[in-house]
Amino acid sequence: MGVLSEGLTQVLIPVAALIGLGFALLQWYLVSKVRVSGHSGGHKSYKDSLIEGDFEEGVDSLEVSAKCAEIQNAISVGATSFLFTEYRYLGIFTGVFGVIIFLFLGSVKGFSTKSEPCTYNTGNICKPALANALFSTIAFLLGALTSVLSGFLGMKIATYANARTTLQARYGVGKAFITAFRSGAVMGFLLAANGLLVLWVTINLFKLYYGDDWEGLYESITGYGLGGSSMALFGRVGGGIYTKAADVIADNVGDNVGDIAGMGSDLFGSYAESSCAALFVASISSFGVSHDYTAMSYPLIISSMGIVVCLLTTLFATDIFEVKNVSEIEPSLKRQLLISTVLMTAGIATVNFFALPSEFTLFNFGTDKVVKNWHLFFCVAIGLWAGLAIGYTTEYYTSNAYSPVRDVADSCRTGAATNVIFGLALGYKSVIIPIFSIAIAIYVSFSLAAMYGVSVAALGMLSTIATGLAIDAYGPISDNAGGIAEMAGMSHEIRERTDALDAAGNTTAAIGKGFAIGSAALVSLALFGAFVSRAGIKTVDVLTPKVFIGLIVGAMLPYWFSAMTMKSVGSAALKMVEEVRRQFNTIPGLMEGTAKPDYATCVKISTDASLREMIPPGALVMLTPLIAGTFFGVETLAGVLAGSLVSGVQVAISASNTGGAWDNAKKYIEAGVNEHAKALGPKGSDAHKAAVIGDTIGDPLKDTSGPSLNILIKLMAVESLVFAPFFATHGGIIFKWL
Amino acid sequence: MGVLSEGLTQVLIPVAALIGLGFALLQWYLVSKVRVSGHSGGHKSYKDSLIEGDFEEGVDSLEVSAKCAEIQNAISVGATSFLFTEYRYLGIFTGVFGVIIFLFLGSVKGFSTKSEPCTYNTGNICKPALANALFSTIAFLLGALTSVLSGFLGMKIATYANARTTLQARYGVGKAFITAFRSGAVMGFLLAANGLLVLWVTINLFKLYYGDDWEGLYESITGYGLGGSSMALFGRVGGGIYTKAADVIADNVGDNVGDIAGMGSDLFGSYAESSCAALFVASISSFGVSHDYTAMSYPLIISSMGIVVCLLTTLFATDIFEVKNVSEIEPSLKRQLLISTVLMTAGIATVNFFALPSEFTLFNFGTDKVVKNWHLFFCVAIGLWAGLAIGYTTEYYTSNAYSPVRDVADSCRTGAATNVIFGLALGYKSVIIPIFSIAIAIYVSFSLAAMYGVSVAALGMLSTIATGLAIDAYGPISDNAGGIAEMAGMSHEIRERTDALDAAGNTTAAIGKGFAIGSAALVSLALFGAFVSRAGIKTVDVLTPKVFIGLIVGAMLPYWFSAMTMKSVGSAALKMVEEVRRQFNTIPGLMEGTAKPDYATCVKISTDASLREMIPPGALVMLTPLIAGTFFGVETLAGVLAGSLVSGVQVAISASNTGGAWDNAKKYIEAGVNEHAKALGPKGSDAHKAAVIGDTIGDPLKDTSGPSLNILIKLMAVESLVFAPFFATHGGIIFKWL
Repeated sequence: MGVLSEGLTQVLIPVAALIGLGFALLQWYLVSKVRVSGHSGGHKSYKDSLIEGDFEEGVDSLEVSAKCAEIQNAISVGATSFLFTEYRYLGIFTGVFGVIIFLFLGSVKGFSTKSEPCTYNTGNICKPALANALFSTIAFLLGALTSVLSGFLGMKIATYANARTTLQARYGVGKAFITAFRSGAVMGFLLAANGLLVLWVTINLFKLYYGDDWEGLYESITGYGLGGSSMALFGRVGGGIYTKAADVIADNVGDNVGDIAGMGSDLFGSYAESSCAALFVASISSFGVSHDYTAMSYPLIISSMGIVVCLLTTLFATDIFEVKNVSEIEPSLKRQLLISTVLMTAGIATVNFFALPSEFTLFNFGTDKVVKNWHLFFCVAIGLWAGLAIGYTTEYYTSNAYSPVRDVADSCRTGAATNVIFGLALGYKSVIIPIFSIAIAIYVSFSLAAMYGVSVAALGMLSTIATGLAIDAYGPISDNAGGIAEMAGMSHEIRERTDALDAAGNTTAAIGKGFAIGSAALVSLALFGAFVSRAGIKTVDVLTPKVFIGLIVGAMLPYWFSAMTMKSVGSAALKMVEEVRRQFNTIPGLMEGTAKPDYATCVKISTDASLREMIPPGALVMLTPLIAGTFFGVETLAGVLAGSLVSGVQVAISASNTGGAWDNAKKYIEAGVNEHAKALGPKGSDAHKAAVIGDTIGDPLKDTSGPSLNILIKLMAVESLVFAPFFATHGGIIFKWL
Repeated sequence: MGVLSEGLTQVLIPVAALIGLGFALLQWYLVSKVRVSGHSGGHKSYKDSLIEGDFEEGVDSLEVSAKCAEIQNAISVGATSFLFTEYRYLGIFTGVFGVIIFLFLGSVKGFSTKSEPCTYNTGNICKPALANALFSTIAFLLGALTSVLSGFLGMKIATYANARTTLQARYGVGKAFITAFRSGAVMGFLLAANGLLVLWVTINLFKLYYGDDWEGLYESITGYGLGGSSMALFGRVGGGIYTKAADVIADNVGDNVGDIAGMGSDLFGSYAESSCAALFVASISSFGVSHDYTAMSYPLIISSMGIVVCLLTTLFATDIFEVKNVSEIEPSLKRQLLISTVLMTAGIATVNFFALPSEFTLFNFGTDKVVKNWHLFFCVAIGLWAGLAIGYTTEYYTSNAYSPVRDVADSCRTGAATNVIFGLALGYKSVIIPIFSIAIAIYVSFSLAAMYGVSVAALGMLSTIATGLAIDAYGPISDNAGGIAEMAGMSHEIRERTDALDAAGNTTAAIGKGFAIGSAALVSLALFGAFVSRAGIKTVDVLTPKVFIGLIVGAMLPYWFSAMTMKSVGSAALKMVEEVRRQFNTIPGLMEGTAKPDYATCVKISTDASLREMIPPGALVMLTPLIAGTFFGVETLAGVLAGSLVSGVQVAISASNTGGAWDNAKKYIEAGVNEHAKALGPKGSDAHKAAVIGDTIGDPLKDTSGPSLNILIKLMAVESLVFAPFFATHGGIIFKWL
């Protein structure tokens, strides 16, 4: 047993969650001090500003502020309206899928993870299937609800912060940065704390029924991860299509529903799944068997520690180091990653010392494995540091401060074609280091502590999720701030500041996607291991036809999925362009600026397209495990999971980074920071036109298909895990016929 | 035993090869009857043509013919010069790698495939390693030589046929088609027959030493496949970079060194590897053990039958159905695929009946498996029909006669960005059916006859290689013919004909790539199985860290490789553009057309770039198995092979089809065959400009990185197989330290 007692553990976890919530509220309060209407600035009066002389000349402050408030309100209304429409669809889906879970799992007559599927005739100790079906369904619904809530709250915060960031940009880049960053932190902490709290409450409520049957308890809990990720999938895809199909006003709305709400659901899903995977593997491998509550709760304690560490980290950006000029933005964000990683390493060591026994035994596919306390430290730490390596690599390949993006910008000299070729090549190349990092993390954690090691490595990578989300959410907030500045007719100088914030935001968005993908790879592997364990398979041998066909078809799925999502974006954009052309032709005075365009129709086109088009890719992901498991059995399904994992990671990383690089190559030419950039620009030059084409191509890659792919791989894995008893009992119909 | 006696088998195989050679020479003779200088047409006098009225007006025939001869000669000289430069590099590589093979394999003290690596101390029957090292090296050198020869002869034929096709286009599209197609057939038959003959001679010569040790014999023979594929890799990559970097004259040269010589080496490599894999698996599984020579030679008999079947198939295109107008070109080529597949199905049944015993036993990873004669029929046939399915799917996605390419063309209305998005989505989508076809072929053949089944399925897909190559080589020949027509200043009408031939050629080139990739997947799996068998591994379990890290890193390799090759093409093209600009600036009168450009420097830039840039991707492919096997051992290497296989197939298919689709979308707009196409065109319209950008991006995808990837996966597999004894004895150094 570790030093930490059960009672103390039961107190520490909710306390950490509440601290996180409190910190989020504090940050929100600080952001709210910036007023968006009536008065120009929160902590500085209009007169003070004029005296200091850094105030924008010639634009009436009150009018600008009112204009910003109006735009912000329009964005918020638009985003809320879209999300509510989306949630109606998701509500139907959740209800139907909840019934499917209940019926499928309820149809299993009783199941033992130990060996063969059991029947009432054998002597195996079998769990009552109905309870598992019921509690899995409840956990699924809770996960779905929390995921939707995470996304929705994130959107609310972002649309609350964007105009405030714009207004603060008038006082300098540092003020704007801090507003955007604090708002990102609100979202990060709210989400991390909320996820932890709901999970903790759910576990404690389920325990009332399950009592000492920890394996049964944590089996049902896996439904929580499934709920979280399935909402994330639709959020990412629907929001992603919406964003890219949208016109100017709706583009800002789109950022909030796709990059904020979708991403929030996504990372919440990763977090929920990695926790569930770690808890389930722990319950069947060691601590569950020996009933060591504190050690069993190790994944939750790690997450609790993560909240505290991220809280300290945030202070470095908001209070210790100050961003004074444009060139300090990106280093400041990058520093956040490094600080949180270093602090968390110490945090993990502390948790390990207090929460874990010095040595324990894991059951690894039938063999016993003795694991030392410090082995597990290495597992979590290597996941954490692999995340940092992925983050830094992503930054290198997507920031226009380094040669890769500058080379892409340079290739615009010879036109859009070379730009696209160089951009694609950059994305492919950017896969190398992340994959080696993931491979090393997997090898070390797998070797030291089998599948439990992999699951805590994933948790390690996500332990600093609050910081990761903060810098990730910062991006679309800054992007919105720039959009508002433009629409409010603010000066060139202000827009230069918001552009600089936004360029850094593109990079951090790419970093966030890198984390999401890297952790998804580890989580999926852990879930995959748990699935194999629960389905009662001994080996997943590539050299059997059932597994191999699964592997090659699984590796194909990311392509099928990407084809669907990219085509959807393209078609929706095409429809939008036609609608705009139609309006110019039919609305008199529109061309001259005397008449107003029909925004409502445009928004409707985006909304309809995204909601209709998210169904086929969603169905592909949700149905594949059900079809593969039911008709082809658990071996083929295991192959599908492994194949989609190893292939999807590559497609996802390359798509995200290619898109990010194109966006920043364009920004590099526009900003003209050095002689080279100036020679390529200015806006409207041939090179710039080529860069714009690249940027447009990159949008669906980085905002729709790329980031949805990590959900694809982990969602299929967690779904397989939840349905494992069903597949093990009833699966493989086709091969039974043949 | 089957009906066919050993003596008769020994006669039939070389006779079939000689028939193939004879048929190739006959077709060459028929092509040669078209005269390129002095006289306008072979079988029709200038006067006759004028009387018939289908002759081009206003252009003097003799002058045109002389001009064509001049251009053809320039292309031939350029291609020969480049290939000889390339071969100097390849000669050095082959020498060095031959020494590596000899030393590595020679360092193994003796090796038994049956169980653990043996030493002189154990009682295992071990083969003398030095003989294996020596004969493997010789087989490697022979394979390399035959591969280079195949490519070189193909280039010679193509550069002999291109101007003849142009000149025949004056008499109508049917005449031009038949000239291009016959020339393709020369290459197809020459290559198939040559490959079979050299292999047969090598086996018979090696038998003088090996005698009854068939396992040892066919182990050494695997070097033949390695030699063939390694040359193919450099040919594809070097030629591909050259093509895309090149200016107008050199573009035609590039087609011949990349699409002809490279592709010839590539398909020869596939053919050699699938034969070697089948022969080796047979030697260790059944026929080798029971010493049934005829059954053992089954793979060679299938190939012999393939030559006869393709001969009959060719007659349908050249003598039975006549191509009268443009719209019949593609159906005619497509019909070739169907006819050869149907005839070959009967051919396989015949071979099975005569050459195989009614039942035999395979040794499959330690278990016995009874296989019936007709089981093996299904294995070969399913490979063959899967090839047809892949071919037809590719045609559907890359021909501008169907909606996918037309949708891509349509998306050009809104600019280059939507064109690229739709094109990429098309490529991704085109992966679905081929992967399911491959998966079904693998499942059926694997289930019926284990790895031997997979290897003969690959052979089945390649059994109609002569026809496949004929329609594939037809493409670049037509492309060249179009280029020559343009340079010789021939009329718009003639160029419309060659353009139509070329558009069909793009589709058939994509089909050829589809075959190459599909067969590479099957071949690689068979080689992979043989490797695992030879390395003495029992299972390749995904759920072990060593295998999993191999899997995920292996899946990354196609991206790394593509990043290298695409960047190379981009850089080389960039240099070329700069050189052209420099010439315009520094050579007086060039802009006005009074001075000649400095072609030599341009060609030198292309040549240098392609030779220098082919080294890193080549090294990546050649070194990966050596590094993975030596340092990480056979399990990790097995993972790498499986990962690169399942991931590489997807990247390769999508890249090839995306490129083909863009090219034909452009051609669709240019040709203006219907109202829709006319609305998008003509040349120079905004939509056409967008289409040109797509086409340019597609070039490196379809001609460099895409088609090289299938070589990557099979080359790594065959290299692993050849070095298996070394890895099994000395491999896994890192894990021994840890």
